[in-house]
Amino acid sequence: MVSPTEMAANSKGPRLWPEPLLAVTDGAVDREALSALAGTSLLNPRQLDRRTVTAIAQLAALLESRNVEMDKPLDGKIAITAFFEASTRTRLSFESAVLRLDGKVLSVPDGQVTGIAKGESIADIGEMFNTYGDVVIMRHPDTDSLEQISKNLHRPLINAGNGSGHHPTQALIDWYALLKWRPDLSRVICPAEKQIHIGIIGTPGSMRTVKSFLRLALMFSGSVKKITIISELADPVGLDLTEPIEESPIEIDITNDVQSVLPQLDVVYMNSIAFLGDSYRNLDARYQLDCDSDLKPGAVILHPLARNQELSVELDETDHNLYFAQAAGAVFVRQAILASILDRLDRISGIKSV
Amino acid sequence: MVSPTEMAANSKGPRLWPEPLLAVTDGAVDREALSALAGTSLLNPRQLDRRTVTAIAQLAALLESRNVEMDKPLDGKIAITAFFEASTRTRLSFESAVLRLDGKVLSVPDGQVTGIAKGESIADIGEMFNTYGDVVIMRHPDTDSLEQISKNLHRPLINAGNGSGHHPTQALIDWYALLKWRPDLSRVICPAEKQIHIGIIGTPGSMRTVKSFLRLALMFSGSVKKITIISELADPVGLDLTEPIEESPIEIDITNDVQSVLPQLDVVYMNSIAFLGDSYRNLDARYQLDCDSDLKPGAVILHPLARNQELSVELDETDHNLYFAQAAGAVFVRQAILASILDRLDRISGIKSV
Amino acid sequence: MVSPTEMAANSKGPRLWPEPLLAVTDGAVDREALSALAGTSLLNPRQLDRRTVTAIAQLAALLESRNVEMDKPLDGKIAITAFFEASTRTRLSFESAVLRLDGKVLSVPDGQVTGIAKGESIADIGEMFNTYGDVVIMRHPDTDSLEQISKNLHRPLINAGNGSGHHPTQALIDWYALLKWRPDLSRVICPAEKQIHIGIIGTPGSMRTVKSFLRLALMFSGSVKKITIISELADPVGLDLTEPIEESPIEIDITNDVQSVLPQLDVVYMNSIAFLGDSYRNLDARYQLDCDSDLKPGAVILHPLARNQELSVELDETDHNLYFAQAAGAVFVRQAILASILDRLDRISGIKSV
Repeated sequence: MVSPTEMAANSKGPRLWPEPLLAVTDGAVDREALSALAGTSLLNPRQLDRRTVTAIAQLAALLESRNVEMDKPLDGKIAITAFFEASTRTRLSFESAVLRLDGKVLSVPDGQVTGIAKGESIADIGEMFNTYGDVVIMRHPDTDSLEQISKNLHRPLINAGNGSGHHPTQALIDWYALLKWRPDLSRVICPAEKQIHIGIIGTPGSMRTVKSFLRLALMFSGSVKKITIISELADPVGLDLTEPIEESPIEIDITNDVQSVLPQLDVVYMNSIAFLGDSYRNLDARYQLDCDSDLKPGAVILHPLARNQELSVELDETDHNLYFAQAAGAVFVRQAILASILDRLDRISGIKSV
Repeated sequence: MVSPTEMAANSKGPRLWPEPLLAVTDGAVDREALSALAGTSLLNPRQLDRRTVTAIAQLAALLESRNVEMDKPLDGKIAITAFFEASTRTRLSFESAVLRLDGKVLSVPDGQVTGIAKGESIADIGEMFNTYGDVVIMRHPDTDSLEQISKNLHRPLINAGNGSGHHPTQALIDWYALLKWRPDLSRVICPAEKQIHIGIIGTPGSMRTVKSFLRLALMFSGSVKKITIISELADPVGLDLTEPIEESPIEIDITNDVQSVLPQLDVVYMNSIAFLGDSYRNLDARYQLDCDSDLKPGAVILHPLARNQELSVELDETDHNLYFAQAAGAVFVRQAILASILDRLDRISGIKSV
Repeated sequence: MVSPTEMAANSKGPRLWPEPLLAVTDGAVDREALSALAGTSLLNPRQLDRRTVTAIAQLAALLESRNVEMDKPLDGKIAITAFFEASTRTRLSFESAVLRLDGKVLSVPDGQVTGIAKGESIADIGEMFNTYGDVVIMRHPDTDSLEQISKNLHRPLINAGNGSGHHPTQALIDWYALLKWRPDLSRVICPAEKQIHIGIIGTPGSMRTVKSFLRLALMFSGSVKKITIISELADPVGLDLTEPIEESPIEIDITNDVQSVLPQLDVVYMNSIAFLGDSYRNLDARYQLDCDSDLKPGAVILHPLARNQELSVELDETDHNLYFAQAAGAVFVRQAILASILDRLDRISGIKSV
């Protein structure tokens, strides 16, 4: 008989157990950091800090470990998943998190064909959401959609991807995977020889998942010694991150030579999709990874998926494949975020405070 | 800490509190009128009368006041929201009402792409719905779709908009807003000086929300002294309403001169969408309202939304904006309708009978 | 007052009561056969045998008779309905079954527009489903989609139609109707004079519902004396069924002359849709049934619906119409399958074992 914990796991690549991460704090969770999220919106990773990211990972690990009792945490709460840009993966992941916490879901699986067709503004949609649900989870192809809907919406709003903007919950999932993989990265200061070198294949300026991941990486300056951005663009970073990068003590460089830097990387973060105006652009063939790529032994690959050619399925069976374990943590992270924002932490018994 | 009642409200425009409407009957609800709806379908506003409209508004107000205890009113009941014409707003509003009463939902968010694609008839779809759910909420672009589905369907059917036909639940929402705004309108006879003059910008003959609103307005002859229909058509009323209008004691006139009549109106009802064959037609520019429009002081605007250019966002921040409060009442009205039709009033404790 | 059992029934054609089928085994259900389904996937009817088909029908009948108490059988379970080919009927039928057993649903009503649009592979979608739900119900236009998703998915998978492959749950619904119509067919051996002659109008090789129905029919060699396949193709059967047909003791013949064989048939099975490459092809006009067709007195027609011209609505009001009763059994059969696969039979009290 397979236990529930084992079942809710990746089919290939190393399994990331939650217990080692919990052991760092002796099973305790930074409840104060989570409680500060009650009633707030999560739009941009700049709202977060290392402490909050770690607290969310701790709660996610507690939920994944099943070492808690839950008293229908989201009972009576309705989450609206408003996907004006279709995404099976992200929508179902959020909806699964809501349902597993005994909340309810109002689903807009493909907003392109609905209200918009009658010329309805995002602001007016926000007005109607006020009385329909208790939290709104929105994906939208327009970067300024968050600003638009917030004109009238007075419910917590979770950004599930806004154009070339941000995707903060994905970045939290990315870091949950890294913290389970190397729990010592959650400490304020890692010994120098344990600090990691992260390579990011992509263009943070135009790719929201890459941008949000990088924004969170900058918060872990005690664990990350260097970040290399691998892009064909001279300035791939974009205005949004210029200042945080300048202020960061982490060494950051940019190269277009993926072959020379690849053997040095402990973590490779990649994505397949860049927003360029209204269309998508796949990564260049030079930046594709497969079993012939010169990866450092022990190096791990993160990818928010869905993938295209840039990440070969050959790698799925290898120990470099952290992306399947990364995906397997998504529902737990989103549960932690929802329980915090909807102020229902008290319904999850067994949260030991730090 | 914001209370639940305050949260489920409009962001702009006057807040319509439910308590004054409840005070008219000392908190009592006309339960007999509601019980008569058990097991019935709601297809056309002509099935309603002033007493039933008022009773639905009373129950909606009770639910909005939160001064009731609900024992999972729709427990074990499944509502099918069959939207063969997409509408985020109306679908989510109904689904929210079902979920907040602890019912369950089977959702057809966009019926255009599904069964119809294989040539399935609406009658056959009705046959299958018999065993899938307990009530069917349907929107369909064809006016005769209600007749078609009723050939085989023997579950209660709620019309959520049929072509150029009717939209009775929207009209109930409109009147719920008016009755909260002016609770004395719920009395059988209002003093003459308190009676209101309603202007309707649009073509009841071809616009279902306008038609249904007008049909209900005719029931309030003790409170409405005059209705002016503002349209560019010589005969905007349509066959459907000719007789009820002739029989009504309310003075009804038709004009295409919006400027001259506007300053006399206590209530302006408008809509943006007319069905003309298979396409939509927006209202003419002359009929657009903004802050320069010569509205009477104290006059209020109703609009079922979504809107286009005909209603300027400039008006949102003014006291003329009753349309946001109107939208905020939608879920409560639909809860009242569903609990009545599904015969579960006994699970809402605290209903004091008149 | 209409009882729940009566309400969940067909509007036209004979009503198929579940009690006579239950009486065959004195109300007992072959629990051992059902328990063997726990944790398994249902992809192809060849996984089934006469005993299992009968056991599923018995449990469906018990559920339809309402002579059971259910303790939220699917509590805490999430079913993913992943319809990469849209189908209102099948999707809602499964979702209704899940909800009526108090499970929860993650719905993909139209997978064509979602993950696929970004080039995501079915295998990767299977990987993500591992942590989102507890059982996956998939329809897909590609016949090899089951093989693709199973590369990474390690949750039970229910095939709700794969290209020109199979549709096993539909075939179970078909046989549930036949076994309620003639409960003696459930016995291992029927007296010769009670054995039936089944006619199948269609091409099993390319029509998945027809193929799956025929595959199950071959299991009832003690009750079916002859099967006539009526098709314009010389070899309508296809590779898949060649061996089972050769091994079957049932007499099987093929004809394109529907008129001559029709008066001999006890059961006529028909379908409207054949997959031919990417498109659909309707049945030829010669194979259409209406009130002028020379049907044997007492003969019944099965059709999985949705229908087109091949089955006239004239027949709806006749005793030949078993297809509406067949449709009315769908939710009960799918409940029986889900409760068995998700190993929750112990939550349905009153199951008497054989």
